[in-house]
Amino acid sequence: MAHTPLHLQAEVNQLRTELAVLQAHQEQSKLIYVGSYLLERLAQLGVTSMFGVPGDFNLGFLDLVEDHPSMEWIGNCNELNASYAADGYARVNERSIGVLTTTFGVGELSAVNGIAGAFSEHVPILHIVGVPNTMQLKNKPMLHHTLGDGRFDAYTKAAEQFTVSQATLMNKTTAAYEIDRVLNDCITTRRPVYLTLPTDICYEKIPSDRLKVHLTSIPPENDEDVETFVLDEIVKLVETAGQDVVILVDACAGRHHVKAELKDLLTKTHFPVYAAPMGKSVVSESYDRYGGIYVGSISHPDIKEKVESAKLVISVGSLRSDFNTGNFTYSVPARKTIELHSDHIMVLHAKFPDIGMKRLLPKLTARLQPYKEEAKLLEVPLYKIVVPQEDNNLISHAWFWPRVGQFFRPKDVIVAETGTSSFGILDVPLPDDAVFLSQVLWGSIGWTVGSTLGAALAARDLGLGRTILFIGDGSIQLTVQELSSMVRVGVKPIIFVLNNSGYTIERYLHGKERKYNDISNWKWTSLLNVLGGEGASESYTVHTKDDLSKLLEDPTFAKAEKIQLVEVMMDKFDAPRGLKMQTELSGKTNKYVTVESTV
Amino acid sequence: MAHTPLHLQAEVNQLRTELAVLQAHQEQSKLIYVGSYLLERLAQLGVTSMFGVPGDFNLGFLDLVEDHPSMEWIGNCNELNASYAADGYARVNERSIGVLTTTFGVGELSAVNGIAGAFSEHVPILHIVGVPNTMQLKNKPMLHHTLGDGRFDAYTKAAEQFTVSQATLMNKTTAAYEIDRVLNDCITTRRPVYLTLPTDICYEKIPSDRLKVHLTSIPPENDEDVETFVLDEIVKLVETAGQDVVILVDACAGRHHVKAELKDLLTKTHFPVYAAPMGKSVVSESYDRYGGIYVGSISHPDIKEKVESAKLVISVGSLRSDFNTGNFTYSVPARKTIELHSDHIMVLHAKFPDIGMKRLLPKLTARLQPYKEEAKLLEVPLYKIVVPQEDNNLISHAWFWPRVGQFFRPKDVIVAETGTSSFGILDVPLPDDAVFLSQVLWGSIGWTVGSTLGAALAARDLGLGRTILFIGDGSIQLTVQELSSMVRVGVKPIIFVLNNSGYTIERYLHGKERKYNDISNWKWTSLLNVLGGEGASESYTVHTKDDLSKLLEDPTFAKAEKIQLVEVMMDKFDAPRGLKMQTELSGKTNKYVTVESTV
Repeated sequence: MAHTPLHLQAEVNQLRTELAVLQAHQEQSKLIYVGSYLLERLAQLGVTSMFGVPGDFNLGFLDLVEDHPSMEWIGNCNELNASYAADGYARVNERSIGVLTTTFGVGELSAVNGIAGAFSEHVPILHIVGVPNTMQLKNKPMLHHTLGDGRFDAYTKAAEQFTVSQATLMNKTTAAYEIDRVLNDCITTRRPVYLTLPTDICYEKIPSDRLKVHLTSIPPENDEDVETFVLDEIVKLVETAGQDVVILVDACAGRHHVKAELKDLLTKTHFPVYAAPMGKSVVSESYDRYGGIYVGSISHPDIKEKVESAKLVISVGSLRSDFNTGNFTYSVPARKTIELHSDHIMVLHAKFPDIGMKRLLPKLTARLQPYKEEAKLLEVPLYKIVVPQEDNNLISHAWFWPRVGQFFRPKDVIVAETGTSSFGILDVPLPDDAVFLSQVLWGSIGWTVGSTLGAALAARDLGLGRTILFIGDGSIQLTVQELSSMVRVGVKPIIFVLNNSGYTIERYLHGKERKYNDISNWKWTSLLNVLGGEGASESYTVHTKDDLSKLLEDPTFAKAEKIQLVEVMMDKFDAPRGLKMQTELSGKTNKYVTVESTV
Repeated sequence: MAHTPLHLQAEVNQLRTELAVLQAHQEQSKLIYVGSYLLERLAQLGVTSMFGVPGDFNLGFLDLVEDHPSMEWIGNCNELNASYAADGYARVNERSIGVLTTTFGVGELSAVNGIAGAFSEHVPILHIVGVPNTMQLKNKPMLHHTLGDGRFDAYTKAAEQFTVSQATLMNKTTAAYEIDRVLNDCITTRRPVYLTLPTDICYEKIPSDRLKVHLTSIPPENDEDVETFVLDEIVKLVETAGQDVVILVDACAGRHHVKAELKDLLTKTHFPVYAAPMGKSVVSESYDRYGGIYVGSISHPDIKEKVESAKLVISVGSLRSDFNTGNFTYSVPARKTIELHSDHIMVLHAKFPDIGMKRLLPKLTARLQPYKEEAKLLEVPLYKIVVPQEDNNLISHAWFWPRVGQFFRPKDVIVAETGTSSFGILDVPLPDDAVFLSQVLWGSIGWTVGSTLGAALAARDLGLGRTILFIGDGSIQLTVQELSSMVRVGVKPIIFVLNNSGYTIERYLHGKERKYNDISNWKWTSLLNVLGGEGASESYTVHTKDDLSKLLEDPTFAKAEKIQLVEVMMDKFDAPRGLKMQTELSGKTNKYVTVESTV
């Protein structure tokens, strides 16, 4: 049968209408599992990898994860490592969050340190815990993984100490609301939240309508009157300072998403900018108005002088912990400091609550732009480091850090473990768009191993460069098995293991020659092979400067097409400049007072 | 100048008196560090090894530990493993306690799961946490290892959930009292306690007088009237039952030190005795009136029949968790059960609080002794297991467990990981004076690796036999680095790694073919070498029954003079009888309900 074009068109129109009606109807009444609702929310937030360990109360949920088209389940070797991985993932995939799934009691409690660290350092993590079904939660039988005394709420009570928000999904009616509530808290505060998912609730069906409205971390507008008042005050202070202003960038500038606004402020005003250790790489370290790391009395003298002599300091996202401030030795008094935070502003001693920097910054840029020409005249020390000439071939910290600095490339993700690594790397300028991860406030040794796994996965998704880890032989022992997960998921970090025979940072703090600071020496170059990496990995030991330079200059090594481990032999009593100064300062505070014995 | 003997004697007497006065004076006024006071208390309690990880807030205390003549510092690879080691140590050195030292925040929180497990399973552990000095605890600066918000009490609040007692030593006046208080709670409740030790308080000096009075875990006398009433009631019930009585032994009989009293009851009354899984090895499994393991509906049919048909069950130290009771399938109703506990007695439905079994048992033995001849007539099934004849050479669970049973010797310490191992070994009778460790209630995978380290150290001190661990390839990955500590401290366990390609217990629960139950395959036989064991260890892979038998019959292997790892190749879907039945039961409870989709 033949049809005229008109007939065909009419039929097409008719079919289209029917289809639209059907689709609209289906959309309205579409029911999905609670577990799937949660996964869709995570997908909307840009989560692509989920970390954790399977356990009997989360297996049903893991079916949904494994079957989800855009979510990859990364089974970790243990839960602490998984929490570290979620943390590292969130730090690199900074528009998203980290997600960790564990099981009731035994699983979740192994991750407490990792979650507390994320709280401390403002890293958004959703901790999903698979728990018994709602009937069991109500009746409290003596299940395995319980304390045996019926206190089924004990784990949540512990979690309350380390997360900003908690939800226990006890019925399907409120499940979507509760999921959204904790996720909202997570993305707005940039801190961890806790969600328990009973085995039965996971498979309850709920309407999916709420998913149409996406969650957002963009803060609301500031109160206009207060904001204008604050801006006026700041401008007055800048003028009073005769434009002798420096900007100091810290951790929360990165965590609370003001990198773009900050970059705009810097390039449009030309004020000199410095970073605290936790703010390293938030502003490009190759930017010509960037002067380096300010860390109180252990700063390089020229940086210290420039920052402390400025008449006004605009501090963005500061987090003044001991190790982030040279043991509280900032010589920048509040009477010449403006502090911009995510949820309040300090102008000298005055606090303006509920005025957030995200909305304020663009307006501040506009108001400060007129001072650009004067700002340009302010001198900024050149932030660079020279590889020193030493008269021996041993790998010293003084030589190592500048040398590896030459190896870095734009977009590399660089992870430094607490200890010699986190201090050593501070003096090394990183290339443009490099991402730097370190845990200066929380300082949990072993964190970087899990964290590197998460960081490398996020880097892969975002098209960043190589992931490079620096860690000591003491720290890596805490979490070493996660190298095996790296091999399994196919990420290819370069891992520098600084073999200095123990806990060097602690030797500097106390007990230099004590046995308790010694550790076992492992066969580091066989480790990746044993952990499943045979054929897919390379390992090296470098004893001398020449060894290391040769390796760094090897194009195959630098391409990082396999996971690689480099054992770097170093003296057990050598340490970077910053670490020596810091431990001297905190050693004084922590001194073990020896009262004169009376016998 | 010459002296007569009389002169000399007078001088000797005079000097002796002076010396005694001086000694008495010195004794009275002897001052010691708070840290040393704590160590002396631990030494009095028989603690010989302390586990943990050094951190800047505990280093001063570790000086005292390292210098203490009878205390060995066992530096672990991480804190979770250290807590597991303290747990294993306490289970074997059962007259003592386990001790774990960590640092503020980062250290202590990594151990939460281990401490919670000890709470759940009634294992006494002292968790010492090195914390900032008292001035810092009061002023709350933003130190590293803090949450950054001034909540210095958050970690203690979390610890409150998982310990029976907590103390923060804030001044020297109350320090000794507080130390004694938490230690008393630890040894009497047989559960973990938490003690924070500020860096300055550790080195305050206090009088040592209190040390003269030792702490004791022996409970006070029961109220005589109530106790007599309870005894009368029990005797009446035994008579009513026509002496058809069985005794059922469980975890808390071992934990609360009634092994000797129990043995006396058994040998003087001849009542048949059975054990719950958590009570395995509390009564010698070679005792001729011992019938094996009762675990509800998954018991061997003859054991089930004997226990459930008895007219009266006297249960000693029961702990009725799901995995300890065949998923709550005891067919032993309360109306024919007497329960003896450390702090109360149940006679059928009546509870007698504050009547403890330790004091009651000897009196019960005296009262029940007259029924001995009738009790002897009660039949007890022979508890034995036969190595089955199978028509292939693959190592099945059905064959493996009876076969290794033949390898065990009296006084061996046998540790079985949650999963195939803990279920597989239940059916195997252990030799006389063997010690059995398993974590049936808490069930945290990975626990046995740390636990084996602690158990082996305690076994060494107590002159026990070999320490033998059974663990799957999934579980060992969680805590594997602790093998390195075993090598370092020189203990020589035999470690059977059941290589069955993943989490087999979980495959039985859910997701049999799911990827999330897969793990990486490691080169198990190279592991000990990499972790520092080259030359000091041996590793083997056994693929067949013949391989394994040959190894078990090798006298050098059996002597265990080096640390040894045996990789046992098994089918990924094979499991012991008990595990299959248990997971079938709990799988039903946990079933993921799939509501009919509406689209």
